[in-house]
Parts: sequence; structure tokens; C-alpha cells
Amino acid sequence: MPARPAAGSLLGIEALDLKDINRILDSARRMQRRTRPMLRERRIALLFYEASTRTRVSFEYAAKMLGATTTVINATASSIEKGESLIDTGYTIMALGAQAIVIRHPSSGAPHLLSRYVDVPVINAGDGMHEHPSQALLDAYTILGHKKTLKGLRVALIGDIFHSRVARSDVLLLTKAGAHVTLCGPPELVPDVARTLADNVTVTRDLREALEDADVIIALRIQKERLEGLQLKLDDYIARYQISAERVRWARKDVIVMHPGPIIRGLELTADVADAERTVILEQVKNGVAVRMAILARALGVSH
Amino acid sequence: MPARPAAGSLLGIEALDLKDINRILDSARRMQRRTRPMLRERRIALLFYEASTRTRVSFEYAAKMLGATTTVINATASSIEKGESLIDTGYTIMALGAQAIVIRHPSSGAPHLLSRYVDVPVINAGDGMHEHPSQALLDAYTILGHKKTLKGLRVALIGDIFHSRVARSDVLLLTKAGAHVTLCGPPELVPDVARTLADNVTVTRDLREALEDADVIIALRIQKERLEGLQLKLDDYIARYQISAERVRWARKDVIVMHPGPIIRGLELTADVADAERTVILEQVKNGVAVRMAILARALGVSH
Amino acid sequence: MPARPAAGSLLGIEALDLKDINRILDSARRMQRRTRPMLRERRIALLFYEASTRTRVSFEYAAKMLGATTTVINATASSIEKGESLIDTGYTIMALGAQAIVIRHPSSGAPHLLSRYVDVPVINAGDGMHEHPSQALLDAYTILGHKKTLKGLRVALIGDIFHSRVARSDVLLLTKAGAHVTLCGPPELVPDVARTLADNVTVTRDLREALEDADVIIALRIQKERLEGLQLKLDDYIARYQISAERVRWARKDVIVMHPGPIIRGLELTADVADAERTVILEQVKNGVAVRMAILARALGVSH
Repeated sequence: MPARPAAGSLLGIEALDLKDINRILDSARRMQRRTRPMLRERRIALLFYEASTRTRVSFEYAAKMLGATTTVINATASSIEKGESLIDTGYTIMALGAQAIVIRHPSSGAPHLLSRYVDVPVINAGDGMHEHPSQALLDAYTILGHKKTLKGLRVALIGDIFHSRVARSDVLLLTKAGAHVTLCGPPELVPDVARTLADNVTVTRDLREALEDADVIIALRIQKERLEGLQLKLDDYIARYQISAERVRWARKDVIVMHPGPIIRGLELTADVADAERTVILEQVKNGVAVRMAILARALGVSH
Repeated sequence: MPARPAAGSLLGIEALDLKDINRILDSARRMQRRTRPMLRERRIALLFYEASTRTRVSFEYAAKMLGATTTVINATASSIEKGESLIDTGYTIMALGAQAIVIRHPSSGAPHLLSRYVDVPVINAGDGMHEHPSQALLDAYTILGHKKTLKGLRVALIGDIFHSRVARSDVLLLTKAGAHVTLCGPPELVPDVARTLADNVTVTRDLREALEDADVIIALRIQKERLEGLQLKLDDYIARYQISAERVRWARKDVIVMHPGPIIRGLELTADVADAERTVILEQVKNGVAVRMAILARALGVSH
Repeated sequence: MPARPAAGSLLGIEALDLKDINRILDSARRMQRRTRPMLRERRIALLFYEASTRTRVSFEYAAKMLGATTTVINATASSIEKGESLIDTGYTIMALGAQAIVIRHPSSGAPHLLSRYVDVPVINAGDGMHEHPSQALLDAYTILGHKKTLKGLRVALIGDIFHSRVARSDVLLLTKAGAHVTLCGPPELVPDVARTLADNVTVTRDLREALEDADVIIALRIQKERLEGLQLKLDDYIARYQISAERVRWARKDVIVMHPGPIIRGLELTADVADAERTVILEQVKNGVAVRMAILARALGVSH
């Protein structure tokens, strides 16, 4: 069994350098211009230990548009037989002929563990509260559709940073690329220690402070069940942190508003913000397919 | 966001005129003769908020036989993330690249709502107790395989009319085409008001009256749980309304017997009727694929 | 409705003669050398009444690699509508256009029942405690990758023989081919009557006796829930029957160790045995795809 992940694996933003990141983004741009069935006869397994609609469909469409054969394995209690370890499942999928494994798992580090045992590339489609690298890459791609460079950009991440693998991957990517990130929310969702995630990260409790001078606002998902667990009042959260049209005006004139989805109108953001022109949430979804095509082509060593 | 459904949408029989209906049926006939991969590179999303085997597989095969790429989204509690609205899910599916959305939903009107927001065609695969237009079209197609015209035909619909979207779509289509429809069942399943569904509709409680002179018998599904809720005795229903070989003889000699499936032998109809030559239930299933190919080609603006 | 299974059906090992078996294994060898899309435009339905990952994905990949169109029908309570019989579901799938049906069902004999009603080939992917013929064929294929012939070979099957459809199919195939099979485990899992499964079968309670002179060890899955039901102590089972590196040394030097999966390390076998070179569990998985390609091509009457 290999000690290191197979070439082409994408486990997290942490292990990528800026050159890798730019190479993936460049490839995604070419994918968006012109798609060829460059992965014909290749087999990709989508191994989902957590329910997911958008990420699963996005990877599935990306694979199919490149001509690859996909199989979805929903690894809920009922389908992965009880007791088999993640590693033995990985061995089995590889033996079945999969040439790349896209995995979502509720435990942080599961894709890394898997990648040390199988010798096909492993792509992390979200692991616990750890990383969601394809989301960060599509976020960067989307920002670069509106801004010349990430360097020096001021990005405000609002909401549940603590539980968010998207936040973590975004912060790592954006700061690597020279952006400044401000994290904003109540202490239960944005602990002070979050400022140590990377250089160039600030934490504030004051939404106005976070938004002032922001080039990009990324609102993160709030899960009601989680607020209850934390004894945070939903009304208080909305009063202090919801992104409304009025509050967006605190930011730079050419600010864009993003959200990884699924959004709940009236919670993280108001309905008018969701539908505003400067809000690029659906662009993110659209770009996600191109970025994931680039990720899959890279995984299988096919250049574009 | 568009105010009107995208061209090629199929929301219900109600909005179709006879010319539209005939055009779809003609196209289905051509599909059955010869299938070409005319939807290659097209992407169709199947968004199912209710479990369905036959309708989902029928649309899926229809799409695949035309060369389209499909993705199935089972929008149960576990897969569509909590709180996201139907419309935002539709936006997301569209942004992912779907060029048509086939939707089944437990709420009447859900496909119509969706179609007012997305600008890809929406195809109603069954909404609540409202409409199931592809079923009515395949029923018409099947009848026309045995009868020269729908005009003047006498069709008896037996069973649970009230809860049936199939019944509603069938009645609308058949009466538009000039057939006479008799609805028959106990008042709990066939309320008197059902006669107002369209012109040329009669209601009777007497099965013999309904079947006499019938060219076509359509038995509808009876759900045991529903009868219990209505305090209708199953035995009483069977005694009065079950389609048996003996009762079929009350109808015209060349009558055909139909059922949208799934059938329960010994409930809506006897086993010998299910297997009789004049019973065309499996023809309906078979024709469904051709009719849905026609519906999908129409949705994507590809003529045959 | 046909009285006999359609040609190309694979219901169990019982009905195959040695010539059939060898023909399938030969075809699988050709499949492994070179795969052509010989089933293009063919439609295969995978009808699973029991959750399954490895068998379902194996058949799915096999079908797709041959160019066939597949549809998966998970026939849990939620998807197959209540009350529809297996036979009516089969009729429906056939009417939808499926040209072969792969079926897994918790009831022994379900595929046989189905095959007497539909006139497309039926492939048994596991029925109750009865048979799992594709597994036995891939086991034979795997053994023949290491041994010249099955004739005269000594095969030890260890563990839960009683509840295992794999054991039953393996015993039938191996003894047909002239191997000698020793079944070993506690009486609750290996009743004395098991020796009557075929000629050339021995039962023993003593693992050492079973392994001595063995050319092949096949460990079977142990389900913890089942042991509890039988009031068998897990620790006792492990102490007496677990396959450890030390115990493997009781067998012939060139012994190979097999397991149908999923394995639980530390239960049926130790982790070092699972990873040992002579253990060919992943080869079994890999060979399964080729064997199932052969089975599907045979079902659809396409020679290689």
C-alpha cells in the first residue's frame, strides 16, 4: 500500500501551492470554453458518506461531460455493509476498476486516510469540519470572473466559520493568494482562535466593520439546529449578522455577494440580496462544474 | 426571472390544445418506429420529491435512448438540504447545467411555481392530486393503438377519481378530444362535483351503467390506507367496483382495459382480467417510453 | 407467459453443467484481455430488493464497460409501490424496455419465480439463503488464476455456511468441477446436514483438520447480529475459527485465502491475513467485473 496520496489527488487547499491553484483555475477556464470527452472509458466512483445534492450532481455532471463513466455509492448504513472499514471499501472500489475516488465523509481527515491506502487519486468533496477544496477553488474562480486578482482583495466571511469546511478552505486559498480575510459572527460561531487559521486574517464581531471596504462578501450557511445547540437566538443572529440590501451598501460599490448554498432566504441573507445582480451564487454553482472538470482531468493525468 | 414557463414545458393537459396533443402523439409514433440519439450532449435533471419507480425509470430510459445525460435527484429529506426552497433548488439545478427539469412533487402546482422562476422547460411528472400529463398522453396513445379516434369514444374511469392526478389529466385530455367519460365509484372516491371537471363527463355509482357501451375501461389505483381513512370497507369496494372478467362482458365486445399501475391483483381488478388479452396495461408502460421521448424532444426544441 | 426461463438466464449454479461453467469462465478471460462495447443500445435493469454495494456496482460497471444502458431500481419499501407483486414489477420493467434483469432479493427462489413469467433473461445476483451464482463463478475464476485445475483441489470453507448463499453456490460449482470441499465451523453455523449439499463434501468442527492439505481457504462472512441470535460468543468463534497467519500455515504452502467481502478485520480473519500476499480478496473483486461482463453478454446472446 502506498504511503503517499496518488498524483492528482486533491485532499485540501492546505497542500496546494499557488502554482497548483492557478493551474487548476486555468484548466477550468479552458473547460468552460470548450469541453471534450477527454475522460472517455475512465471510471470515477463517487463515494458519499453524507447526503449531498449539489456537490454530488456537480461532480457527476463534470465527469459525464468529459465522457467518463460514473458510479454513485451512497454509503449510508443501508448500503455500505456494516463493519467494513473505509479502507477496505476503498480497496474494493479500486478493485472494481475505479480510476479516481471522489469522497465526502463526515469525519475530518477521512479522504487523507483513504489516500494513504489506495493507489488511485482521491478527491475530497468535503470532510467533516475540515476542508472542501473544490468549493474554495470554485469560489476563487468566481471571484476572478469579477476582480482582476485575488492579491490585496478584502474578503468578508460572515456566519458560521467554526463548523464550516468551506470557510476553512476559502481562508486557506484566499490568503495564499494574497487576499485579506475578515471573519465575522458571534463568538460561538467565530471563536477568537480563528484568526490563527492563516496570516492576513482578522476577526470581528461587528458586521459593519467586516463589510466596510469589502470587495467580496461570502455568507456562510447557518443551521438552525446548531444555533439551538449553542443557545444562540435566531432572531439575535438575524438582527446582527443577516446580509441585507442596506448592509451590503456598507461595502465597496463593486462588491459581490457569495454563498456556498443551500441558502435559506431570510436567514443568512434577505430575499432581495439573494436575487440582486451583484449576488453571484448561481455563478458559483455554474463555475463549480467547470472547476470540477478541471479537478477530474488533473486527477486522471489528462491535460487539456 | 421569467414570468412564463419556458417553451417546451409540459405542466398539465389543461394548458394544451388538441393540436399540441396530436403533435406529441405523432412524434411519439415516430419515436417508436425509429430512435436516434437526437439529444446527445443534452442534460436532463429528474427531480423527484416523491418515490417513483415506473415514471422515473420511464423518463430515464426515454432520455438515455435519445442520448441525453441524466441525473436523478431524489429530493427526500436526506438529500435536498433542509430549508432550501423549491425555487432555489431549481435555480441550482439550472446553474449546474440541466437543460430541462422533470419534476414530481407531492404538492399540486409545484411544477407551475418552478416554471415561473427557471428559464428551462419544466415537465410535470405528477404533482399532488392535480395532473400527470405524460400519463394521460400515453393513455391516449395506447387507446389510439386500438381505436380509430378518440372522438365519440365512451371511456369509463373506475375507482379513486378524487385522489387521482391520472384521472384528472385523463378526463381533461379525453374530453378535449371529443370522448365521453363516465366516472364510477362510491361518493367518497367520486364526489358528485367531479362531473364538473369537463364537459361530457357523467358520474354514476352503478358499475354496470358505467361499463355498458364502454369502448375503454380505465381502472384506477386504490390505496388501502386511503380506504381505511375514509372508513370504506375493502370488501364492499371489491363487491361493487372490482373489474372482473364477468363485468368486463357488460362492456362493448372490443373494449380494452387499462390501468396506470401499479396494479394490485384482486383489488382493482381480478388476476384473470390483468392477464387478459384485451387488457393493455403493459402496452401503456411500453408506450410511455415513446411518449416521454416525444415530450423530452419537444422540451428541448428538437424536432424529429 | 413463458414457462421456462429465457435463454441466457443465470438462476443458480445448480442448473449449470460443467460445460456452461467453463464457457462463462473462458468468456470472462477474453473480457479481461479486451473489452468492446458489444452491448451498445442494450438496456439492463438492476432490480435490488436488498441493499448491496459491491455486487450492484460490479454489475453496473460490467454493463457500462460493454456499452449497455443501465437503470438501478432500489426496490425498498419507498420505491417499489406497496402491494405490487414481484411478477408485475418484472412485467413493468420488461415493458419499459429492459432486455435483461439482474435481481437481488431476500427470498430464496425469487429470481426463479420471476424468470417463469418474463421473457427476458433473469440473472440472480443473490437470493435469500439460496444461491449467488456470479460470486461462485468469480471465485472459480480467481482460483484458476492460481491453480491449474479445480479437479482434485482441496477447498476449505470456514464460517457461516448455513446462512450463506455464497457457500451454497461455491460448493455446487466446486464439486461439479471435481474439487473436494471441507466445511468448517460450529454446529450452529455448519449443521451436520450440510455434508449432503453435494458429493465430495466433508464437515468438521476442527479448523486444523479443515486447513490441513487445503489448496484454497474461503472464509465466509460472520454477522455479529446473527451470532447473538444463536447465543454464540464472538470470542469463542474467534478463538476457534478465525483465520490467522499462524493457522494459515497449517495449510499447503501455496494456499490462497479468499473471502466474498465485506471483510471485518479481526473477526473472520486477522488484519495481517487480510493484507497477506497469498490473500486474493481484491483479485476476487476485480475478476468479478470480468465474470459479470461474460454473464451479461451471455444473457443477451452476444458472443465474444
